[in-house]
Amino acid sequence: MEMLNKVCEALELVRKVNPLVHHITNYVSVNDCANITLTIGASPVMSDEIDDVGDLIKISNALVLNIGTLNKRTIEAMFYVGKEANKLGIPIVFDPVGTGATKLRTEIAMKIIDEIDISVLRGNMSEIKSLIGLSSSTKGVDSTEKMEGAEEISKLASKKFNCVVGISGEVDVISDGERIYKVLNGHSILTKVTGTGCMVTSLIGSFLGAGCNPLTSCVSGYVVMGICGEEVFKKSGNNIGTFKVKLYDEIFNINEIKIKEGVLLEKC
Amino acid sequence: MEMLNKVCEALELVRKVNPLVHHITNYVSVNDCANITLTIGASPVMSDEIDDVGDLIKISNALVLNIGTLNKRTIEAMFYVGKEANKLGIPIVFDPVGTGATKLRTEIAMKIIDEIDISVLRGNMSEIKSLIGLSSSTKGVDSTEKMEGAEEISKLASKKFNCVVGISGEVDVISDGERIYKVLNGHSILTKVTGTGCMVTSLIGSFLGAGCNPLTSCVSGYVVMGICGEEVFKKSGNNIGTFKVKLYDEIFNINEIKIKEGVLLEKC
Amino acid sequence: MEMLNKVCEALELVRKVNPLVHHITNYVSVNDCANITLTIGASPVMSDEIDDVGDLIKISNALVLNIGTLNKRTIEAMFYVGKEANKLGIPIVFDPVGTGATKLRTEIAMKIIDEIDISVLRGNMSEIKSLIGLSSSTKGVDSTEKMEGAEEISKLASKKFNCVVGISGEVDVISDGERIYKVLNGHSILTKVTGTGCMVTSLIGSFLGAGCNPLTSCVSGYVVMGICGEEVFKKSGNNIGTFKVKLYDEIFNINEIKIKEGVLLEKC
Repeated sequence: MEMLNKVCEALELVRKVNPLVHHITNYVSVNDCANITLTIGASPVMSDEIDDVGDLIKISNALVLNIGTLNKRTIEAMFYVGKEANKLGIPIVFDPVGTGATKLRTEIAMKIIDEIDISVLRGNMSEIKSLIGLSSSTKGVDSTEKMEGAEEISKLASKKFNCVVGISGEVDVISDGERIYKVLNGHSILTKVTGTGCMVTSLIGSFLGAGCNPLTSCVSGYVVMGICGEEVFKKSGNNIGTFKVKLYDEIFNINEIKIKEGVLLEKC
Repeated sequence: MEMLNKVCEALELVRKVNPLVHHITNYVSVNDCANITLTIGASPVMSDEIDDVGDLIKISNALVLNIGTLNKRTIEAMFYVGKEANKLGIPIVFDPVGTGATKLRTEIAMKIIDEIDISVLRGNMSEIKSLIGLSSSTKGVDSTEKMEGAEEISKLASKKFNCVVGISGEVDVISDGERIYKVLNGHSILTKVTGTGCMVTSLIGSFLGAGCNPLTSCVSGYVVMGICGEEVFKKSGNNIGTFKVKLYDEIFNINEIKIKEGVLLEKC
Repeated sequence: MEMLNKVCEALELVRKVNPLVHHITNYVSVNDCANITLTIGASPVMSDEIDDVGDLIKISNALVLNIGTLNKRTIEAMFYVGKEANKLGIPIVFDPVGTGATKLRTEIAMKIIDEIDISVLRGNMSEIKSLIGLSSSTKGVDSTEKMEGAEEISKLASKKFNCVVGISGEVDVISDGERIYKVLNGHSILTKVTGTGCMVTSLIGSFLGAGCNPLTSCVSGYVVMGICGEEVFKKSGNNIGTFKVKLYDEIFNINEIKIKEGVLLEKC
């Protein structure tokens, strides 16, 4: 499958290029985001001070925007650095954490998508549904929506927002408005570790920074997390602390052979 | 013992109800607080932006307030969301980190207790002593006070503040102003991992969110952390990094049988 | 070697004194900084609110300033608490994260060194070069500079800034303006874990807080991290998640015998 080869190339590329990935992200999973970025072969830099981010984005290869613990100060910095990234042609992945759960999150997420050119939008079903104006229920930053209709919704959102859209779920669904890919890898234990969604976003940012196109970057992020999550569960079982530690081990050692053996990727 | 059965029921309940627990907490242990909340069977959401917390508390089942790294912006959000929680009848657990160590912490903690109805107040001996106006010594966020008189102090504080009070120490002491419980489980290695106090507070918030009463919630938080800490030390010994990882494993897999086998709970 | 004995004494001292180390640090590695401080035998306290830090520094034994995620609010607190520490004679270790990468970081770092008496300055080659006015290249918070000339540069920086200077690299180089020490321990896998530089800074802060002189504190921080990093890599290999966990185990259990067996320390 063509996409599978692209995923393998993406992995090779990120380790070769070692891109710098600038994050404005939440303070809950920020350490995990930095470590996952290093683990996949990229370099993280975190800053949310408006007087600092303009210089950092100039030397960065990709930008991650994540509104998990947004506040007025960091929102301002996000808009500023997002627009600077657009001017410089630096790709952006946006994680609209908790959209639909609060008015502020929904408004800011809509405004980011409206005013900034995003390469990849990655969220859960609640978040993406609320962004395209469908009613949705949430449990704070976790989705309570079924994945039914995810293919159509990802395609619709992709066309509406003119970017690749990834919806995380039991099956991850990715669309660029034309094509739809489904990643069937993964394990439900991933939802018991905080920040695994944010970590996928950082993986996508790492692939974008390496020069991969948005569709490949998004599929690659999900494939890596999905295969590794599955594999680690086999080893550590229902041991959530050990699971998280070994997830880093597994991602650090993922390679083409393991991807080709483990991947469950479908094109619709 | 009646309380022991209630603790076991609390554990069952939190996993069944999967309550949403809103935190305004410190940026040191925030990731651990989120993970421990997931580990015990609840869902965490973290936000400290005043324009965001009002919507979040409406969908939450409990609120955790923790002043570990307080600042003017988050203090304002704490008072706002605390009062909203009171209006909505949502239970609050308050962790007065570092009270007694600085004028600001002591003042804010007193003001929170004064203006907001708290269900559970959980702190160390230095913090609780300083809150009831007794002179106390601290080492920043760690207590340097002996546990002598903890029974009387927990009872006094409980009556004064009209909430359940839990005092962490070699033996954890909990009072609702009438009854006093002591949890003799635990291990001193827990004081060598940052944030284990905050994590107990998040456990208490999870039990409160599941609908348990304040006394049961507070005792349950200490019993879970105490038994699991003890058990993990047996397995990992003086390996502090491994200890922290396996603490999550143990709590994720705690059950009624393990509680009944391991518990050291006394009613005074 | 005289310095080796001093390192061993420093380790004994930090565990005996259990100093309180106040940090204003970044939100990426703050949890690791707190844990490493506990692991070596000191106590951490983190606060960046200007109305809080003045009281905390009075009861602290050392101060860590780290500009990894600086913002206007925390910058103000750093200058305030730094000057208070100077008045009280409390030693300061400064970590100029990302200096050279942005104008703001370079300006603030220069101003801190100019206005506050620092005991130890610890950074990577890019950071230290940019601080002494040499052109340097960076990758955000990571150095892209070779270690060539590090001896001369550490000595120069030390004389210019009137403090001990530690430059992290394949070989760590430390100077007090007269003497130069090189720590050859360590492993490149340490650069794949976020915050290991910050963690060395916290170790140095812990030794300073125990009453060790700046040169001994800086050498001791590097020796402990270097020997333990090396040792852990032998056990866990290319498993980055496991490596980080066992790094805490190793540091918690480091002792005089292990230091004397493993140390690779040179005086130039």
